[in-house]
Amino acid sequence: VLVDVGKRSGKHSAAQRFINRRLIHAARQYNTVVRLKGGDPMMFGRAQEEIDALHAAGIEVEVVPGITAALAAAAQSRISLTARGTSRHVSFVTPAVGNGEAASDWTEAACAADTAVLYMAARHASQHAQTLMQAGRVSTTPVLYVEAAGTAKRRQHCCTLADVALGALDSIQGDGPGLIMMGAAYQRALEQHKSITQHRDDNDANASEYRQVHG
Amino acid sequence: VLVDVGKRSGKHSAAQRFINRRLIHAARQYNTVVRLKGGDPMMFGRAQEEIDALHAAGIEVEVVPGITAALAAAAQSRISLTARGTSRHVSFVTPAVGNGEAASDWTEAACAADTAVLYMAARHASQHAQTLMQAGRVSTTPVLYVEAAGTAKRRQHCCTLADVALGALDSIQGDGPGLIMMGAAYQRALEQHKSITQHRDDNDANASEYRQVHG
Repeated sequence: VLVDVGKRSGKHSAAQRFINRRLIHAARQYNTVVRLKGGDPMMFGRAQEEIDALHAAGIEVEVVPGITAALAAAAQSRISLTARGTSRHVSFVTPAVGNGEAASDWTEAACAADTAVLYMAARHASQHAQTLMQAGRVSTTPVLYVEAAGTAKRRQHCCTLADVALGALDSIQGDGPGLIMMGAAYQRALEQHKSITQHRDDNDANASEYRQVHG
Repeated sequence: VLVDVGKRSGKHSAAQRFINRRLIHAARQYNTVVRLKGGDPMMFGRAQEEIDALHAAGIEVEVVPGITAALAAAAQSRISLTARGTSRHVSFVTPAVGNGEAASDWTEAACAADTAVLYMAARHASQHAQTLMQAGRVSTTPVLYVEAAGTAKRRQHCCTLADVALGALDSIQGDGPGLIMMGAAYQRALEQHKSITQHRDDNDANASEYRQVHG
């Protein structure tokens, strides 16, 4: 028996209270019920609400850890979240708030850590980048944007925080959930990206010159 | 062929430069070489140094993500690192520095996040707790100490940051690597721990009264 209560980036999903009730109902009906989530359930996964609801109903719970998006993105990009000397702490933050929830002050945690990873932030990326720059994160901070981390559809883009504030991610966003990672850890990736872009622009310039001459 | 360059909590381990050379040497000798690490390689795993050394030697690298200690500890304790309203950001921090490395200012990142996880901090736990309290983390902050997270030998202890500063973790530490997790996420665990301890003390008191009467 498979029941889909799936969440999709930006799409309407089943209310948490409904999911909790559904889980308790299923647990009373079957010996073993698996609640499958993407990423790691204990990191922005609303696991606590489900665990608490099940405990309150006297149902035993085992939690199996998973690969949270930031770790999947790090592995695929081959850029470590931490590195000696340059990135010695990491924060996982979300500016997203649930219905009826007060906006949290997420900027302090995102500014204080060498590497900051923003979950569920891609949709309003430019606004969040502006907020971060106002809070003190420098505009030249390298950003690695990773979409659909951990899947074969993964795409990534490198730019600065100022670029994000100016809308750099708005045009390239697809359907998958996007992760905004930032900090000195991505400095080298940014430089490589720039030199590739520069190289391509030079080639394009040469090509159009060529076309002008020979076209 | 298995080469052990293993790190053990507090024990002497092979120098990183030696490990890098050993990896390059092995990659030239064999088609496939697996560099196995505990936890996730991209989180306090020195992966970047190994990836860079291999890239510089022209050797292709694939990174397979893993379960970092904090996620393993969260799953085993059934306490989510994030929870709506109470813990909306998480920081992963270490006060440990390598040989010849300057002490990083890790306290800001550990104070700014609702949930802070300290890696490689158990050995000097009381000192680190004092540092954090001086930096502004309140003394009543609930702490969950988890040793050997993700293994069957896991042990955990709940107390406050002030308790840690007073040496609460010093006597209970075993051989496994310890994780110091703190924040409002552990408030309920702390209260449960207190009420169990209180209950046990009451029972002990009753027992000794009983012995006094009947002994």
